[in-house]
Amino acid sequence: MPTWNSYLEQHQPRFLDELLAFLSIPSISAISANAGDVQRAAEWVATRVTAAGMEHVQILPTGGHPVVYADWLHAPGKPTVMIYGHFDVQPVDPLDLWTKPPFEPYVHDDKVFARGASDDKGNMLVPILAVEALLKATGALPVNLKFFFEGQEEIGSPQLGEFVPKYTDLLACDMVLSSDGGQWSATEPIILVGLRGGCGVQIDVKAARADLHSGMYGGVVQNPIHALATLIASMHGPDGTVTVAGFYDEVVALSEQDRERIARVPYDESAEIESLEVPALFGEAGYTPRERAWARPTLEVNGIWGGFQNEGVKTVLPSEAHAKITCRLVVDQNPSRIVELLQAHVASHTPPGVTVSVIPLPFRAYPYLVPEDEPGNAAVREVLVELYGKEPYDVRSGGSIPVCSLFQRHLGAYTASFAFGLDDEDIHSPNEFFRLASFRKGQSAYCTLLERLGR
Amino acid sequence: MPTWNSYLEQHQPRFLDELLAFLSIPSISAISANAGDVQRAAEWVATRVTAAGMEHVQILPTGGHPVVYADWLHAPGKPTVMIYGHFDVQPVDPLDLWTKPPFEPYVHDDKVFARGASDDKGNMLVPILAVEALLKATGALPVNLKFFFEGQEEIGSPQLGEFVPKYTDLLACDMVLSSDGGQWSATEPIILVGLRGGCGVQIDVKAARADLHSGMYGGVVQNPIHALATLIASMHGPDGTVTVAGFYDEVVALSEQDRERIARVPYDESAEIESLEVPALFGEAGYTPRERAWARPTLEVNGIWGGFQNEGVKTVLPSEAHAKITCRLVVDQNPSRIVELLQAHVASHTPPGVTVSVIPLPFRAYPYLVPEDEPGNAAVREVLVELYGKEPYDVRSGGSIPVCSLFQRHLGAYTASFAFGLDDEDIHSPNEFFRLASFRKGQSAYCTLLERLGR
Repeated sequence: MPTWNSYLEQHQPRFLDELLAFLSIPSISAISANAGDVQRAAEWVATRVTAAGMEHVQILPTGGHPVVYADWLHAPGKPTVMIYGHFDVQPVDPLDLWTKPPFEPYVHDDKVFARGASDDKGNMLVPILAVEALLKATGALPVNLKFFFEGQEEIGSPQLGEFVPKYTDLLACDMVLSSDGGQWSATEPIILVGLRGGCGVQIDVKAARADLHSGMYGGVVQNPIHALATLIASMHGPDGTVTVAGFYDEVVALSEQDRERIARVPYDESAEIESLEVPALFGEAGYTPRERAWARPTLEVNGIWGGFQNEGVKTVLPSEAHAKITCRLVVDQNPSRIVELLQAHVASHTPPGVTVSVIPLPFRAYPYLVPEDEPGNAAVREVLVELYGKEPYDVRSGGSIPVCSLFQRHLGAYTASFAFGLDDEDIHSPNEFFRLASFRKGQSAYCTLLERLGR
Repeated sequence: MPTWNSYLEQHQPRFLDELLAFLSIPSISAISANAGDVQRAAEWVATRVTAAGMEHVQILPTGGHPVVYADWLHAPGKPTVMIYGHFDVQPVDPLDLWTKPPFEPYVHDDKVFARGASDDKGNMLVPILAVEALLKATGALPVNLKFFFEGQEEIGSPQLGEFVPKYTDLLACDMVLSSDGGQWSATEPIILVGLRGGCGVQIDVKAARADLHSGMYGGVVQNPIHALATLIASMHGPDGTVTVAGFYDEVVALSEQDRERIARVPYDESAEIESLEVPALFGEAGYTPRERAWARPTLEVNGIWGGFQNEGVKTVLPSEAHAKITCRLVVDQNPSRIVELLQAHVASHTPPGVTVSVIPLPFRAYPYLVPEDEPGNAAVREVLVELYGKEPYDVRSGGSIPVCSLFQRHLGAYTASFAFGLDDEDIHSPNEFFRLASFRKGQSAYCTLLERLGR
C-alpha cells in the first residue's frame, strides 16, 4: 500500500491537468450572465470530491449560487473537521491588461496563471487532493470530514446568513479549516486569530421641499449639507477617536500579550506612507497603526453627496444631503447595538431646521477572535512550525469574513485559516497566478494536519 | 399736437401686435441652437428703437449674445438716463405643462401669455413705447436718454464684466432705470435699495492615492470626507453665524432706520415655513429672517461629493472629497478679500493626514446698496406714490444682479428698478404671462418719470 506522500508524488501531472480544467470555467459570481458557469463549477467540484472518495455529495440550493457539500464520517471518536473554500471568482476587467485570456490557464515559470488560480480554486483543490491521497493510500481518513464549498464568496456570501442556520445539523463540526487565504511569505507562516465585524447606516438629511436660490434663502433656512457636516464632524475627536456615546463600551481592551503579538508582525510605517501617498498616517492616539486596523473599532464615511456636483457654479441651497457610514467592530461589540447608538447620536446631535433619518445598511458582521487555546489553530500552529521551521505570526484582519462569524455563531466552530496563497499573486487583478510549489506543499500540509487532528 | 398720453391711447392696438411679434422670437440665451434667435431679437429691438425715434442705434458684439445700444442726446443741461432691459428669455421646459406653445403668444383674460411676456420682453418694450410717445407727441425727450438692452441676462451676463468697462464713454450716464423687475403687488409699489454680492471657492481634499478597503485601512489613514466635514462644520457657529476669521470685519452694521425699513415690508414667517416645508427657519441670532436674507452675509455649501454614492454598501475609505461653497456678501465686503479669508481658514483648520486645495470659483459680485438720497430712486419714489397712492416698500434682494454693481463700479451710476411685473406671473415657469393693465400703466409711468427727471 502506498503512503499518501507517494500517492501525491505519483499523481501530480493529473492534479495539474485537473486544476487547469477547473480554472477554465468562468465562474464569476458577480455577473449574472455567468450564473450557469458558477453552477457548472459546482458540478465540477461535486464530481471531483466524489472521485476523491467523499460521500453524500450534494449541490445545495441557497436562493443564489449553490453550496457543494460532502462528507466522510467513518472515524468514530475522532473530531469532525469541516473544510471551507469557494469556487466562484472575481470579475476579470480590465481585460486588456491580461497577458493571456483569464480563463485559458497556462503554466509559466512554475506558476499557473488564470483568474481564480490563487483565489480560491488552486487553494481549494489542495485539500480535495489531500483527502483523495489519504483515502486511496490508507483507505480511511484520520478524522470525520465535511466539505463546504460555496459559490458566492466574491459577492459577500449574501445567502449564507440564512443558509448556515438552516443546515446546522448537516454542517455540525468541531472546527473549520479554511482553504481561502495564504501565508505571510514563502518562508514565514501566519495564524489568523481575529477579524473585525461591521455594520452601517445611511443618513438622509432633508431641509426645504426643493432646492432653493441661495440669494433668496441663504440665511433663512438651514443648509442640509451644513447639518450633515456637523453630524459627521461630531462623530470623531481630533485624533480620530469615535465620539459616539457608548461606542467603546463593549470593546475588550488589548492586553499586553495582544500588543506584543501584534508588534511581532513586521510593519514598515514609512513604506506604508510612501505606498499610500499620504502626508502621514492617522488615527486614535495610544495605538500603533496595526493595532488600530486590527484591534480597534472605526467609523468611516464611505460616501457623501448633496447639491450641485458639476463643473462651474450653481448658487443653490440644496434640499437634501446624504452619507453612507460603515463601522468596523471588535469583540465584544454587537453590530445591532452599534446601529442603535448611531441612531441615538444623530438624534441628539441634529442641528435645528432639518429632519434626519438613519437607515441601517445591509452590512452586519460580528467581530471574531479565536481563543488562544482553540484546538484547530493549535494544530495548525504545530504543522506550520514543522513546515517552515519558525513560529507563525499571529495576525488579525481589519476586514470581515462573514462565514467565519457565521460558523462560530451557528455551529460553535472556529475557523482556522490553512492556505498557501502569497501576497504577490495578483488576486482580484489581471494575471492572477498560483505557485506550483505552494500547490504541492499544501497537499502534504493538509495530509499532515488532518493526521495531527486525528491523534 | 397730441399729448404723450393721447398718443399712447391711440396706438395700444399696434403696441400689442408688436409685443406679440417680439414674443414670438424664441430668444433662449441658454441654448446654443437658439443663438440665431437671440440675434434676431436684437435686430427686432434695433429696428423698433429706430422707429421710436432713437439715434445711433447699434448692435454691439460682446463675444457672446449682443447688446443693443441707442441714444437721444439733445437735452443739454439735463441728466443722462440709461434704460436697461434684456431681450433673451429662459428655456421653456417642461414643455408639456404649457397650455399653448411658449412662442405662440396669445391674449386671454386681459393677459398676454408667452415665454418672456413678463421677464423681460413685455416690461422692456414699455419704456421704448414711452419714448416713442414722448418723441412723437412733443418732438423731444425731457432728458438725455440711452438704451442698453442685453441678450444674456438669463445666463448671468457672462460677457458684460468685460463689456461695460470697455464702453464706459459710450455708456456714461447719471443714472440707470431697469425695466427688469416688478412691484410688490397690484396695489403696493417697491423701491429696490440693495443687493447682496458674492464669491465662491471649491475645496478639494485628498488623502490616499486611491480608494482603500475600509477593513484594511480604517484607522490607519485619514478619511477625506471626515476632514472635509470638519472643515465645513468649522465655518459656522450653532446658530449659523459664519466663524471664518475676519468674515464680518467690513460688514456695515444695520442702523435702526435700516431695520425699520426692512420691518415695514410684509413678511409672514409661518406662511414661509409652510411653503418651504421646513421644521423651522434658521439663521444668525439677533436678526429677523428678512434681515438675514437681505442685509447679512452668508456662506453656503452648494454641493458636496466623495466616495460611494450608489445603492447598497461599499466599504470604501475614499481617496478624495469635494465641496463647492458660495458666499453672499453685503456692503462693504470685498469678494476677493473674502476668498482669501476662506483660503486662510481652510489652511488653519485642515486636519492632519490630508492635503487640501481651495480654488476660487468664477462668481464674484460686489454688494450693492443705493444711498437714501440717490436721485433716480428719489424720482421713482415720487412717481410711485402718485401712481399707487402710497409709499413704496424699500426692499433689498438677497441675490446678486451683476449689471447693477457693474454700472455702479464702472459708470458711477446707480440703478433704479422701475418695472411692473407681479409675483404670480410665472416667470421661468410654464404659462408665463404679463397683464395688459401693467403694460399700459408702465408706459404712462415711464413718461411721467422721464418728465420728472427732466425738471
